[in-house]
Amino acid sequence: MLEWDAVIVGAGILGLSTAYHIKLSHPDQRILVVDKFNAAGQASTAKSASAFRCLFSSYTNYVLADSSIEFYRHLQEDLNVDLKLQWTGYLWLLNEADCDEVLPILRDLSKKDFEYNEYDEEELAQRLFMRTNLTNDEEAQMMKLGNVLKGIFIPKAGVVDADCLVKFYEEEFLRLGGEIKYGVKVENVVVEPCESLGIPGEPYFWQDSRIAGLNTSNGFIKAKKTILAAGAWIPQLLDAVGIECFIKPKKRQLFTIPAKDAELKQLLFTKGFNSVGCLPFTILPSPRILIRPFPNEGVFWLGYADNFPRAFKIEDDPQPEKNFYQYGIYQVLMKYFPQFKDCRPTSAFSGLYEINTLDGQPVIFEENDLIVVGGASGSGIMKADAIGRIATAIYNDEEYALLYGNRKFKVSDLGLKKRHVEQEKLLI
Amino acid sequence: MLEWDAVIVGAGILGLSTAYHIKLSHPDQRILVVDKFNAAGQASTAKSASAFRCLFSSYTNYVLADSSIEFYRHLQEDLNVDLKLQWTGYLWLLNEADCDEVLPILRDLSKKDFEYNEYDEEELAQRLFMRTNLTNDEEAQMMKLGNVLKGIFIPKAGVVDADCLVKFYEEEFLRLGGEIKYGVKVENVVVEPCESLGIPGEPYFWQDSRIAGLNTSNGFIKAKKTILAAGAWIPQLLDAVGIECFIKPKKRQLFTIPAKDAELKQLLFTKGFNSVGCLPFTILPSPRILIRPFPNEGVFWLGYADNFPRAFKIEDDPQPEKNFYQYGIYQVLMKYFPQFKDCRPTSAFSGLYEINTLDGQPVIFEENDLIVVGGASGSGIMKADAIGRIATAIYNDEEYALLYGNRKFKVSDLGLKKRHVEQEKLLI
Repeated sequence: MLEWDAVIVGAGILGLSTAYHIKLSHPDQRILVVDKFNAAGQASTAKSASAFRCLFSSYTNYVLADSSIEFYRHLQEDLNVDLKLQWTGYLWLLNEADCDEVLPILRDLSKKDFEYNEYDEEELAQRLFMRTNLTNDEEAQMMKLGNVLKGIFIPKAGVVDADCLVKFYEEEFLRLGGEIKYGVKVENVVVEPCESLGIPGEPYFWQDSRIAGLNTSNGFIKAKKTILAAGAWIPQLLDAVGIECFIKPKKRQLFTIPAKDAELKQLLFTKGFNSVGCLPFTILPSPRILIRPFPNEGVFWLGYADNFPRAFKIEDDPQPEKNFYQYGIYQVLMKYFPQFKDCRPTSAFSGLYEINTLDGQPVIFEENDLIVVGGASGSGIMKADAIGRIATAIYNDEEYALLYGNRKFKVSDLGLKKRHVEQEKLLI
Repeated sequence: MLEWDAVIVGAGILGLSTAYHIKLSHPDQRILVVDKFNAAGQASTAKSASAFRCLFSSYTNYVLADSSIEFYRHLQEDLNVDLKLQWTGYLWLLNEADCDEVLPILRDLSKKDFEYNEYDEEELAQRLFMRTNLTNDEEAQMMKLGNVLKGIFIPKAGVVDADCLVKFYEEEFLRLGGEIKYGVKVENVVVEPCESLGIPGEPYFWQDSRIAGLNTSNGFIKAKKTILAAGAWIPQLLDAVGIECFIKPKKRQLFTIPAKDAELKQLLFTKGFNSVGCLPFTILPSPRILIRPFPNEGVFWLGYADNFPRAFKIEDDPQPEKNFYQYGIYQVLMKYFPQFKDCRPTSAFSGLYEINTLDGQPVIFEENDLIVVGGASGSGIMKADAIGRIATAIYNDEEYALLYGNRKFKVSDLGLKKRHVEQEKLLI
């Protein structure tokens, strides 16, 4: 039976970045990617807001995002790969409590060359035609919505087309001779004894054992290394063999609102923040509802990453909830941006975050010939290139990965045994 | 509708210890325990090896076990509560690698008044009629079984009857006026807004919300505090409301072998180790198979806590596996103790560990009026009294719990936000 050098589960952004970097590092090895869908990036990758920022308090988060984004910039600007990368910037609107929480951290970061601008209430009201003072709005008070005191603009941030990025890694991987089988559903990872004795039911606990591949809808796939980059589906594959990865799935939703009238068009194409000539990716004061501009399509995407009591739950076809927009997002949104009054989504979509419940940062480790690449917790696209390089370093048994821009990264920092990451203090 | 002061899910050892200590601290409050079974301690508590030791490298583990065991001693010796507590001691047999791992830690502990004796190979062979040298045994070599070089005897250890302990807490809780409803299955914890606005589908994310009780097979049970002490079933209740507790279920099995012939009787009633006149609770060299003496019944219980690739899996009626004994435990056991040759279990039973995958120590925290008491990871019985007192301190909003023997314990040490426990180095 053919034994692949590596089989990678998941043709999402993390799986394909990993596959590409491994294949680049081993042009002669047989590397296979499998995915249950019939094309690349069809699960959670396709459901992402596809935005990026270099604003993180944790050095790990920062270097993963910054080096990946520099790589994407290089692809688009130097190599003419169209990723639809747009430097819209992030505009983070802060109420009083947000200011107390966020401003000291930002001012600290600015000492390390991190760039941002502050806008005051009046300027925001003028530029965005928004309501910053909700003091006399009884409903807003009942909803405990605070006044906007400040806006923080981060220029090194923007949006990208997830599909273009996925296509880049897929095409390059295939061009290098990598193989992909679509429409293959993984049933379970397969455990075998390192030295088989032919006893029924082996391996027993007194034997050394390892992951030898995958049972799939297409039969057994044997591999020297099995790499799980299956996002929110990783924990169920690992639970079956008793390996903890600290990843849990949680549904996220995005709602599309077209800029149908003059007021909304004006907002979408707000000038003065960026060279795109559009509204930056905007975060409202707590609860931190996000407005993702999509100027090319003339729409906004609206979302909110709710925690308690949103279930940790795996769903093969997660659905957006009408009430989540209607009674949730809309009620908050239209208090700050009355332009959205009476707007209803024309479409909506829903994917799964693969949340690392330890610290919200990626989890990359090897155990028994199984490599886990996941836990990106909603920032997988903006960190995908660095994550693929780190997974490749683990595959190569290297202590350090070299990220784009020649930045060295200690791979054990994202493992479980010697994990070393700072707690992220800037949660959007 | 009646609102209970507290409802506790689970009439196992942790639930009942918690219920008892809370009721003792609040004689006038209405405290309810619910359990899906028709009597106390019928789930994992009933399936335990029911042994205890004060041998832990982590101070947290040590103080939880030591104070609980001193309380049990007090119950039995001073108050004449028959817990069938027997000080059999633990005998830990070590191969070369075990010695390297364990002896430095033990010698360090002995400086802090921890008592133990070392036995050498020859003495063990003589006293136990065991094989300590497997060098010429081809099968044993193939199985990578090491020679026994040392035995460590820990006197402050032994066995207890889980059912007697459970009965003590149950009866005292009822005597104080606590209430228990058996045969009540919890479907889910119920989330309500702190201030209801009567909107369909509340609470929304811009509202504060809390756990207000339980949906059960008996209807809604409303409570000021909801306490989950449901062992391996905790994570599925918490996943449904998106709370992480770092607990995963894993099956454990015990097999009963009667001391049917003279050789096995001699082993079971080995003299010279303890005042009971029986074999100590014995741990074989790695893989660390355990032999739990049950002198009153004339039997041994045999078990092994296997990790990879044993699944994390919830099962309502977990079953022991014949092959786990036959090709697993038996193969190792009879190499060291040929007395067991051809022995087959006359019965077997299986329960679920509620493993804390962070550090193997209990998890006790409060969030949104929900208190979680779990993660005892296989040492719940020996720590139950301390765990119940710590849960009560959280219920009382106290910073410290007073454990039996007046030992102060900082309750946040076992929480998730400010968790502070040493990694346990002595894993049996």
